[in-house]
Amino acid sequence: MSVELMAQKAKKAAIVLSGLDAGKKNRALDLIAKKLDENKEEIFKANIQDIERSTGENLAEPLIKRLKFDEKKLEDLLDGIKSLIDMEDPIGKTLLSTELDNELELYKVSCPIGIIGIIFESRPDALVQISALCLKSGNAVLLKGGREASLTNKILYETILAATREAGIPDNWINLLESRDEVSELLKLDQYVDLIIPRGSNEFVRYIMDNSRIPVMGHADGICHCYIDEDADIERAVSIVVDSKTQYVSVCNALETLLIHEKVADTILPLLKEKFDERNVELRGCDKTRGIISCSAATEEDWKTEYLDYILSVKVVESIDQAIEHINTYGSGHTDAIVSENKANIEKFMNYVDSGNVFANCSTRFSDGFRYGFGAEVGISTNKLHARGPVGLDGLVTYKYKVVGKGHIVADYAEKRRKFTHKPIDEKFSV
Amino acid sequence: MSVELMAQKAKKAAIVLSGLDAGKKNRALDLIAKKLDENKEEIFKANIQDIERSTGENLAEPLIKRLKFDEKKLEDLLDGIKSLIDMEDPIGKTLLSTELDNELELYKVSCPIGIIGIIFESRPDALVQISALCLKSGNAVLLKGGREASLTNKILYETILAATREAGIPDNWINLLESRDEVSELLKLDQYVDLIIPRGSNEFVRYIMDNSRIPVMGHADGICHCYIDEDADIERAVSIVVDSKTQYVSVCNALETLLIHEKVADTILPLLKEKFDERNVELRGCDKTRGIISCSAATEEDWKTEYLDYILSVKVVESIDQAIEHINTYGSGHTDAIVSENKANIEKFMNYVDSGNVFANCSTRFSDGFRYGFGAEVGISTNKLHARGPVGLDGLVTYKYKVVGKGHIVADYAEKRRKFTHKPIDEKFSV
Repeated sequence: MSVELMAQKAKKAAIVLSGLDAGKKNRALDLIAKKLDENKEEIFKANIQDIERSTGENLAEPLIKRLKFDEKKLEDLLDGIKSLIDMEDPIGKTLLSTELDNELELYKVSCPIGIIGIIFESRPDALVQISALCLKSGNAVLLKGGREASLTNKILYETILAATREAGIPDNWINLLESRDEVSELLKLDQYVDLIIPRGSNEFVRYIMDNSRIPVMGHADGICHCYIDEDADIERAVSIVVDSKTQYVSVCNALETLLIHEKVADTILPLLKEKFDERNVELRGCDKTRGIISCSAATEEDWKTEYLDYILSVKVVESIDQAIEHINTYGSGHTDAIVSENKANIEKFMNYVDSGNVFANCSTRFSDGFRYGFGAEVGISTNKLHARGPVGLDGLVTYKYKVVGKGHIVADYAEKRRKFTHKPIDEKFSV
Repeated sequence: MSVELMAQKAKKAAIVLSGLDAGKKNRALDLIAKKLDENKEEIFKANIQDIERSTGENLAEPLIKRLKFDEKKLEDLLDGIKSLIDMEDPIGKTLLSTELDNELELYKVSCPIGIIGIIFESRPDALVQISALCLKSGNAVLLKGGREASLTNKILYETILAATREAGIPDNWINLLESRDEVSELLKLDQYVDLIIPRGSNEFVRYIMDNSRIPVMGHADGICHCYIDEDADIERAVSIVVDSKTQYVSVCNALETLLIHEKVADTILPLLKEKFDERNVELRGCDKTRGIISCSAATEEDWKTEYLDYILSVKVVESIDQAIEHINTYGSGHTDAIVSENKANIEKFMNYVDSGNVFANCSTRFSDGFRYGFGAEVGISTNKLHARGPVGLDGLVTYKYKVVGKGHIVADYAEKRRKFTHKPIDEKFSV
């Protein structure tokens, strides 16, 4: 089947999906959990084949790790699906209701986006998470996973499909693409596909943005900053910076640049240097930093770099304003933190730093859908429109305006026979 | 000044703007209204020059009409600004608050988008409306108006600038581009500009979408449908269809295709034919339609056409499902209406028609920001993401996540020393 035909059929399924009640969607999610558990031995077997083949092809160790789908991963997924079932249905919520005139009412009601194309890398558990989020939010999906996980993805897809079929949901709501050529086809289908969520390298996300008219939700870079204010608690600052940088270095919410106020640099930098030496973190500092501790020199390029590695760039600043300006110039709008005991400075930082996630006195690593209590996430968005930061169910939903009248026509208002009342009403949508 | 330099300066102004309190923004809006009134003679004079020049250049009559800026237009604008002042500040609203753990709190807080590029055609009053909406929502703007309105736009821009300067707002928050070359430059500035709102022809909107990485909010087409159900009130149906088609034909929310259930076509079509003959509306019908009334034949192309003229395509359908499918196939996701007394059918139509505005028993012409009670609109969006339908203040706002802790680090949760509580709290953001 061509991707276009797949998308056409998915569009019909999406229309059906948009009208499903919460009970039916939750029953389908429950069946997915059940069937995943029933088929687990087969799934693990397929996964071992994927791992063996990929190891033979010299896939890098961290990618092999991500590729692994075992009992622990399955348990996490089943927990995730259970928490998703418990969540309120995001569809059909009345977001606004206004009486426009007597018996003419306006409602803003949440509804699914439609068809979502998701391109993800090695982790096969992402396929299950994303499909479950899309099902709960009533969206049809076209999924493309990494080649290295192809057997695992295939059996996961088949398991989900069998479960939703049993629940009476049209098959075409979920679709698995298998080749790269199909991705190129997908990018052209702006007539059918409403949103693409790419999860992969920066270059890959940019490539997709440049090669499709379809809106893209994704993040290009995670150049996260921590600014230690002159009024920082020193112990806290050290602990937060160390956690932000080293708790897990290869992720987008890890710290890449430390900004430190000159009044506390003398005290804090030597303490940090000691901690980072223990953890083999290379520091790259500005001139002032290098006047206090010994480290290599940071270049202009360093301020723009997402290392995803045991490297940290360090800059001493003269003021909070200079810190904010640095972040708004070099940052990527992902996650930036201030460590300070001064409330006015915290407020200033949180208002003026133009990022999706702004933190006070905690680690940048908290920037995550699970930690935020969203149950699951499809990714973290550095877009400013539609959805920003970690994206859970809310980011997979849009709205439509519903207006219900009793024969109202505009000529009556244009010719001043009637007037709008525009009165907020406290009512859910009904006809 | 190059557009890039303008955008760089606008970015700095946008950061200041994002932190302005409601009082300061409202004072600025009040000053804008005052100065527009003070300078009105000069503005009218500039407008007359624009009209005379454009008439000499044989600009089409409807465009000359739109170009006109007189006492009546000014009054409407001043009313609009007053209602905007009375509206709640859309910025700094707490949209969600969750306790993640003891003394670790997550807030989702509304904030401005940043820098918005707006390209509009002849109507100079749009410049004032859009600037006022952007100011109230804390966004900086780059404005490009039509060449035909250049003198009017210039003096309106200068008047607004003088007012906001007096209110203490940095000059660079508002910028007027004067040439087409500057638009090409603007489209490349995805580093600074967060959103482009084009108001113009379909081709123009598509051109912009294809030539910029910047997200575009606009509408490509307004192919609006009205479906007359088998359970329709006949008198209502006729009145709604006539209003939807003829109350103002050249606008995006005017009716372009009528769908009518075969069970009522025999009764209603002759009544409509009489009304439309009186109003010189050309009907283009499917075969079944032409079996009932005399009219020209509709082609496949007609179902895809936004006439913006005294032409209506008509199709007889066998069922509400066929009507919904027709709309979801040929529609543009703008505004579609059902006329029916059957609640189940109304609900079905409103759920399954995949458009930004779905109406029951009222004219498609109600699809408008003013009529919806939004005070003003920057346009009507047929995008499905971010903002859909008429876009007022809400569509010019995004959000950021703010997390406030007391030294919290992720290692404590990863190593199971602490657990998330994820408890909703009923609190506004504070540090």
